[in-house]
Amino acid sequence: MQGVKLMKDIYVADVVGIEDGTEVELKGWVHKIYDLGKISFVKLRDKTGIIQIVIDESLNVKLRLEMCIEIKGKKVKNEKAPEGIEVQVDELNILGKTYYDKLPFAINAGKIKAGLETQLDHRTISLRAPKIAAVFSVQEKIAYAFKDYLRARKFTEVYTPKIIAAGTEGGSEMFTVDYFEHRAFLAQSPQFYKQMMVGSGFERIFEVGHAYRAELHNTYRHLNEYVSLDLEMAFIEDEFEIMDLEEGYINYLFKYLKIECERELKLYDIVLPEKVEIPRIPLAEAQGILLEVYGKRSSKADIDGEGEKLLCQYIKEKYNSDFVFLTKYPASKRPMYTMPDDKVAGTTKSFDLIYKGLEITTGGQRIHDYEKLIANIARMGFKTEEFEFYTENFRYGMPPHGGFAIGLERLTMKILGLENIREAALLPRDMKRMTP
Amino acid sequence: MQGVKLMKDIYVADVVGIEDGTEVELKGWVHKIYDLGKISFVKLRDKTGIIQIVIDESLNVKLRLEMCIEIKGKKVKNEKAPEGIEVQVDELNILGKTYYDKLPFAINAGKIKAGLETQLDHRTISLRAPKIAAVFSVQEKIAYAFKDYLRARKFTEVYTPKIIAAGTEGGSEMFTVDYFEHRAFLAQSPQFYKQMMVGSGFERIFEVGHAYRAELHNTYRHLNEYVSLDLEMAFIEDEFEIMDLEEGYINYLFKYLKIECERELKLYDIVLPEKVEIPRIPLAEAQGILLEVYGKRSSKADIDGEGEKLLCQYIKEKYNSDFVFLTKYPASKRPMYTMPDDKVAGTTKSFDLIYKGLEITTGGQRIHDYEKLIANIARMGFKTEEFEFYTENFRYGMPPHGGFAIGLERLTMKILGLENIREAALLPRDMKRMTP
Repeated sequence: MQGVKLMKDIYVADVVGIEDGTEVELKGWVHKIYDLGKISFVKLRDKTGIIQIVIDESLNVKLRLEMCIEIKGKKVKNEKAPEGIEVQVDELNILGKTYYDKLPFAINAGKIKAGLETQLDHRTISLRAPKIAAVFSVQEKIAYAFKDYLRARKFTEVYTPKIIAAGTEGGSEMFTVDYFEHRAFLAQSPQFYKQMMVGSGFERIFEVGHAYRAELHNTYRHLNEYVSLDLEMAFIEDEFEIMDLEEGYINYLFKYLKIECERELKLYDIVLPEKVEIPRIPLAEAQGILLEVYGKRSSKADIDGEGEKLLCQYIKEKYNSDFVFLTKYPASKRPMYTMPDDKVAGTTKSFDLIYKGLEITTGGQRIHDYEKLIANIARMGFKTEEFEFYTENFRYGMPPHGGFAIGLERLTMKILGLENIREAALLPRDMKRMTP
Repeated sequence: MQGVKLMKDIYVADVVGIEDGTEVELKGWVHKIYDLGKISFVKLRDKTGIIQIVIDESLNVKLRLEMCIEIKGKKVKNEKAPEGIEVQVDELNILGKTYYDKLPFAINAGKIKAGLETQLDHRTISLRAPKIAAVFSVQEKIAYAFKDYLRARKFTEVYTPKIIAAGTEGGSEMFTVDYFEHRAFLAQSPQFYKQMMVGSGFERIFEVGHAYRAELHNTYRHLNEYVSLDLEMAFIEDEFEIMDLEEGYINYLFKYLKIECERELKLYDIVLPEKVEIPRIPLAEAQGILLEVYGKRSSKADIDGEGEKLLCQYIKEKYNSDFVFLTKYPASKRPMYTMPDDKVAGTTKSFDLIYKGLEITTGGQRIHDYEKLIANIARMGFKTEEFEFYTENFRYGMPPHGGFAIGLERLTMKILGLENIREAALLPRDMKRMTP
């Protein structure tokens, strides 16, 4: 190879832009093998894509699917190869051997022919399928967009404890932890701590971290451990400012995904809207629409899963929006920290965001006045002394504030049109699954 | 105020750059009050700083320390005021009332006169002290620098489960969780999952998330829940590539902090070095130095806390470095996934990074060959079947890989010269503390 420039530390996706005849070094997995005897055409897959490599029998290597290899070879044009290029291999090293009789399922032949549970059992394999990897490429960008959007708006990123002494809902549906001599819980949300951090002078904070729900639900939309995109913001006028912020994020996100995930969105046939304007409808009004338009009765203070779907259908037809904010939830259905809306008796300054028939956000303004908070905790039947570590903070000047949380897996699922939330979790945890 | 431009949505730090005579709106906390009868000089504190505001008695407001207020007023020059500016208040609203008899401790008079435990009990108050807030401003930037550095190098950010079925060390020192019908653990580190994600085709991944250690240690340097800056990288040559990456991060970080945290570093009298070159010394050699130079004997395969401090003293004198990589730890002291170093029998391709006398990182190359891994698990006395959910992944082509983890609180503590790691945790969890 004397006199020939060797390009190292490059990825498959870089090769197309490299001059013909250049010697390149690539590393990756054996995705597909066409053994023609004298030569083999092999597809090499790395983080960035798949490329055809040509291996002469004189190299005397026995490849198996999914081996990790390193090659050196010459980039050449070949009209018959995908992208019109291939690499003629001069040197090949096996970096990672395989020890299987048979792969659990094929990942190089279109749609995986294995059920979701089998795919999750063999997550390291299923994630190698380009279409499945694309889910997490999009998910990563959803979180990046959230962080970048907020960093640019003077929000501080925080890491708050997940081991807690008492829950926001008074201890229901929480996992318990043996914490030395004590019983502790896993946080259902960073709610208390978000508020405390706002009150600690950070004013605007966000957290991207795990939340835990010990709900006895095994459905397409529940995970028992999920990633929550959380924010909280001080000195707001009302809950609509929080909705403005979320709408701003959704618009920022969609623009960002169009640029950063063009290939991934195409794989899923997704065309994101240019601009998102989200209708804001009081819950009672939405219930009225459901009754009037679809003859569907709702329970007193809520809309059920079917109702969310029908409502989104209505909103899509009337406003051409995949999103709808439901506002002014009744106080009876909201946690004790939720700010009452004095304009409409019995309602609160809170909202849900429904996206394509699924709730992806709960948010609103919170109570910031100490006496009001204590009264509300008592009104809801909790013991105020159990929350002292939380309410104590409200004695020392808490600003008006509010926030929201987005379930990362739910948002990912809905953007890509996935059917089960487990498809949008790298390693899902549900009632039956603790591994891998 | 007719005809005068009102600047809204600004912060205290913005005022200095605003034209004299401009009407500004500011929101924040009452930091200090000098009541002179006819007028009061008040320090208003927000996320960005402290400014003097002047309130005439005609406004008829009764302020208390730490109230949240909103003011409108005119920016004027006043040579006697800090920064030479102040705001003459025209309008004042109290946004957040106070309900205390006495503040737990003063945060407006230099060093807080309360012990660390009291400060942590009243975390919302202590965090309002500018010097304490600065710790978390630096901490936030340490994490940003880590993420930005890795995003620019094609690393993917992942979120892996913290509820796990088995630990990296076989279940010792882990918190147990009641997970429906099963016993689960809280992850001591994302080690298994970092490796799996590398093998899933992401190649390079990082995670910033909580790690849990049920260690019975109540020391200045242990937390039972902490934030771990974790990365893992495929297709490496050896552990030195991982050390290069960490050294690169430290240099990137210090440059970043000099720009982003100039004020905070000054508050702590910290001057960061221009360039960090980290000596790399095999553990056995370091033990020899300790014996020869300080007459200190080390236990067979480790250096204790005192030894780490003495060694750093030696390194500082000899190499002018606050950091030292200790390499080639003995296999007996490293977890079962650690790559043996065949060049020096009994040692591994692993390292620690010691910074100013404290270990802040453990890292190294991992075993990627299935048979080698199984043999090593058995050799260390574990049951291989208990790790099947993990080892299974190694059957299908795992690339050579390695990584490291940095304790975020430890790094923060050492950069700022704090004495107790609890000072570097927003809401620390230790053997005695689950609240606030």
